[in-house]
Amino acid sequence: MGPQPAPLPELRLVDHHCHGVLRTHPDRTAFEALLTESDAPAAPGTTFFDTQLGFAVRRLCPPLLGLDPHCAPEPYLARRRELGAEESGRRLLRAAGIAEFLVDTGLPGDLTEPRELAALGGGRAREIVRLEHLAERCADGIADTDDTADTAAPERFVTALATGIRSAARTAAGFKSVAAYRHGLHLDPDEPHRDEVLRAAAHWLDGRSTGTRLGDPVLLRHLLWSAARTGLPLQLHTGFGDPDLRLQHSDPLLLTDFIKAVRPTGCTLVLLHGYPFHRNAGYLAHVFPHVYADVGLALTHTGARATAVLAELLELTPFGKLLFSTDGYGLPELYVVGAHLFREALAELTTALVASGAWSRPDADRVANMIASGNAQRVYGTTATATA
Amino acid sequence: MGPQPAPLPELRLVDHHCHGVLRTHPDRTAFEALLTESDAPAAPGTTFFDTQLGFAVRRLCPPLLGLDPHCAPEPYLARRRELGAEESGRRLLRAAGIAEFLVDTGLPGDLTEPRELAALGGGRAREIVRLEHLAERCADGIADTDDTADTAAPERFVTALATGIRSAARTAAGFKSVAAYRHGLHLDPDEPHRDEVLRAAAHWLDGRSTGTRLGDPVLLRHLLWSAARTGLPLQLHTGFGDPDLRLQHSDPLLLTDFIKAVRPTGCTLVLLHGYPFHRNAGYLAHVFPHVYADVGLALTHTGARATAVLAELLELTPFGKLLFSTDGYGLPELYVVGAHLFREALAELTTALVASGAWSRPDADRVANMIASGNAQRVYGTTATATA
Amino acid sequence: MGPQPAPLPELRLVDHHCHGVLRTHPDRTAFEALLTESDAPAAPGTTFFDTQLGFAVRRLCPPLLGLDPHCAPEPYLARRRELGAEESGRRLLRAAGIAEFLVDTGLPGDLTEPRELAALGGGRAREIVRLEHLAERCADGIADTDDTADTAAPERFVTALATGIRSAARTAAGFKSVAAYRHGLHLDPDEPHRDEVLRAAAHWLDGRSTGTRLGDPVLLRHLLWSAARTGLPLQLHTGFGDPDLRLQHSDPLLLTDFIKAVRPTGCTLVLLHGYPFHRNAGYLAHVFPHVYADVGLALTHTGARATAVLAELLELTPFGKLLFSTDGYGLPELYVVGAHLFREALAELTTALVASGAWSRPDADRVANMIASGNAQRVYGTTATATA
Repeated sequence: MGPQPAPLPELRLVDHHCHGVLRTHPDRTAFEALLTESDAPAAPGTTFFDTQLGFAVRRLCPPLLGLDPHCAPEPYLARRRELGAEESGRRLLRAAGIAEFLVDTGLPGDLTEPRELAALGGGRAREIVRLEHLAERCADGIADTDDTADTAAPERFVTALATGIRSAARTAAGFKSVAAYRHGLHLDPDEPHRDEVLRAAAHWLDGRSTGTRLGDPVLLRHLLWSAARTGLPLQLHTGFGDPDLRLQHSDPLLLTDFIKAVRPTGCTLVLLHGYPFHRNAGYLAHVFPHVYADVGLALTHTGARATAVLAELLELTPFGKLLFSTDGYGLPELYVVGAHLFREALAELTTALVASGAWSRPDADRVANMIASGNAQRVYGTTATATA
Repeated sequence: MGPQPAPLPELRLVDHHCHGVLRTHPDRTAFEALLTESDAPAAPGTTFFDTQLGFAVRRLCPPLLGLDPHCAPEPYLARRRELGAEESGRRLLRAAGIAEFLVDTGLPGDLTEPRELAALGGGRAREIVRLEHLAERCADGIADTDDTADTAAPERFVTALATGIRSAARTAAGFKSVAAYRHGLHLDPDEPHRDEVLRAAAHWLDGRSTGTRLGDPVLLRHLLWSAARTGLPLQLHTGFGDPDLRLQHSDPLLLTDFIKAVRPTGCTLVLLHGYPFHRNAGYLAHVFPHVYADVGLALTHTGARATAVLAELLELTPFGKLLFSTDGYGLPELYVVGAHLFREALAELTTALVASGAWSRPDADRVANMIASGNAQRVYGTTATATA
Repeated sequence: MGPQPAPLPELRLVDHHCHGVLRTHPDRTAFEALLTESDAPAAPGTTFFDTQLGFAVRRLCPPLLGLDPHCAPEPYLARRRELGAEESGRRLLRAAGIAEFLVDTGLPGDLTEPRELAALGGGRAREIVRLEHLAERCADGIADTDDTADTAAPERFVTALATGIRSAARTAAGFKSVAAYRHGLHLDPDEPHRDEVLRAAAHWLDGRSTGTRLGDPVLLRHLLWSAARTGLPLQLHTGFGDPDLRLQHSDPLLLTDFIKAVRPTGCTLVLLHGYPFHRNAGYLAHVFPHVYADVGLALTHTGARATAVLAELLELTPFGKLLFSTDGYGLPELYVVGAHLFREALAELTTALVASGAWSRPDADRVANMIASGNAQRVYGTTATATA
């Protein structure tokens, strides 16, 4: 393999799943923590810079701040601090070249709002509403004004949640669920009855303190079905993530019965990430018309292996069913890496496929544009309602 | 990667698992439906031509009908209609260059018989008898002549089935089970007792209408064991298929206990397809002497990725244990794609392995011939009893 | 792909997981049996030489004994017999170029001791103590001197085991468990109470004859926790192995809850092999600071595919968390193949990554040294206490 073909710089990118970036400069420990899905410091004698993602950051980001590629972590972090969070963020995000950001706003931390992220990145932004976060805010709201032991609290919670979802559906581009983290995807597939939901709400609210996370499987199912009924696309975390989840419980195949059950509502399901079960996600996108797959952190975290992983995703996933995202969170570097690796992997794959005669060049360009932005535009609608 | 090495045109192919082709020209909707394992139309804004299989069809088949490679679907389908189903079928099947077809005759539709397929393709054909289909025809036969509420019906069904299997074993090349679709492979491994079988038959036959499919796990196990006891090879669908199955219930590893239990009968088990669990199928073929693996739709549906998937299959599968098939069904295009991709993948792999020094050229050629036809000939016997 | 880049001969190797070699020359049947994880002869018409491992042995080993690469099995075995087990073993092991061997001594057969292996190979050796083997020897010891129906036997067994583990911990480099074979990794994660352990011991010892294997899940868990509490690294077999195991029960993800439960002890867990679940092992090494992954038989048995498999392991596994091993056992050829394939795969991968600009050359060399020996030295400590 010689030098890789130039990435496709002209490719318009819609990042259909990302988060905000930190408003302040992180120190090395905080920076490293955002390079991994681990919830602990690196093992003694190791660093999270010594990962595919760390190497990709060191390759791609230093030149954007005036340093050599592959420069060591310390001078890179020093230069970043010198420029400040806003200026380094602007330089990095602009270089990512993302035209539109769909931003999951349900993560904690001092993060940019969608509008700010779009301004830094020179693009537009829309919101993706995280269901569990919405439900927790509803519960916090109930708690602010009521005695949660109040027998009417479950009713009020369910009503507030319905209102919240309806209201979100008017402006958001879609919903997202992290049921994989909170319970696992081995959920009962059917919509829970109102009585069940009320009982589960009563149980969860009883003695709950503000901020307590929602992990009750009945309430998680209620969220999924409520979102599905809005007609907006519903993103589901699947596969690899932090150790809150059990990886075997985030295999997208566990959603098969839910996918079948929810199909009559006409909703669209987008299976995020999927790695290392991305071939399973591709199968589901292949056989179910309302299911889509995503590249997400399957590329960002595998770095120099992004081409190989994307190739696996493109085995069964119909080309009209795969969507680009960075899953960028906290560090603007993750948007650079996600966007660059995606462009490079697509260019490398399609160059080889065209050279071998397997694909035609016009088809290759058409497919690249579909995955980069066309499929997301069809699934999430036009950008007319973008917030920036 | 430059242009691929020329496929191995001289390679004799035995397609040990395929079906018939349509006797009539399908319209675009029907054609697309045969390009996918989905049971639904493509999602709005997408087409099943935009898949690895669709791209492979558009690359390989138009030149066989006098058009340019990668020509658009409409002119291709128009040319095909102009030639007619028989003439286009003959041109395509001849080009596939398959010397012998082992044809699973248990699928519905106006499909060619093995003899007709062989005549179109210029090869020989033998039959593979689909067990569930045979059992359903036995049940239909009972229903034709008896009151199914008749207490003797289960006995007659079991007897008719035994006769049917014995009779099939005299002419067929092997049996096939689709238990993965009808129940999943997480079956009790042991042979059911006659009493259990009769009770299950009574339950299934009671009120059954003609054509009702067999999904009872006891009867499915009875079929597997009855076939195993004939001494003919038994093909088992594993992995990827239409949404009748739950993919997680078609992992060939679920067969491990059945594989162990059935070993003393001396039967041979051929695990079809396997994707995306093909490495698991390779493991089973590695550790159990009576287990074989197949390329099948793992290559046809992954198109330009066929080389990568075949390479994974060749990690643990002993080279004497892997068999070529197209899983062709309905469209002669699928035989062209299956045969061409297999030849090309083998050529690409072996060329690289020989160039790197990892394999010798004589070994590479020997292994190619084993997978293409030699292993199938050893497993299914000589072609002396071929029906054409 | 042209000829592969030269392997990295200067790379210092610590083989952190291997076994002894046979002291005598095996005949062809015995030789073939050591080329496979199957427990049965090859299927009729096939040979275990026709596997990736068989081809790798035929490529790499004949030149070390003065024959041409890819020479046929019979002349190779004749030449080997002519030289004798010791001389051929010395030539092969020296050529493997392994500086240090960590030897699991718990396998049966007329095998070299660590000290002998090191002498043949020109390196140093330390011992890895196999927990189940240690427990069985303790039970045999009890049986030698006691009536096993004696009500004090369980107490004596548990005491002897504690003493054995404590004593082993003073000299061994680490412990190993084959719970995947004996029960499967779907064990209750928690440390069993002393009462439970005594009851399980009583049950197991009752009527036990010498040599009976330990498969009781409570005792297996007791072994794991006892080893974890010593502070030495604990190796766990995961993934592919002989048909004693059910592959689906050796997925390292099944260890997730144990990994979490045992974390406060401060122990280090090394997940061996992992194939075909090696990406799952990489995930666990990514998110848990005390978990490491291994190349092991995932490379040895996949032969010409070693580069592809290593590349998959390097997707999520932090580079400071992957360890080289051959899993060599019985045949010195397996050390040659394991060491050569590893060097070659690393060289091929890093050459391509540096050529594409994805990695810098200094980083590539640093990572190669970490996986080859640096990580093992940090995990298992210095070689000061090596037995040879």
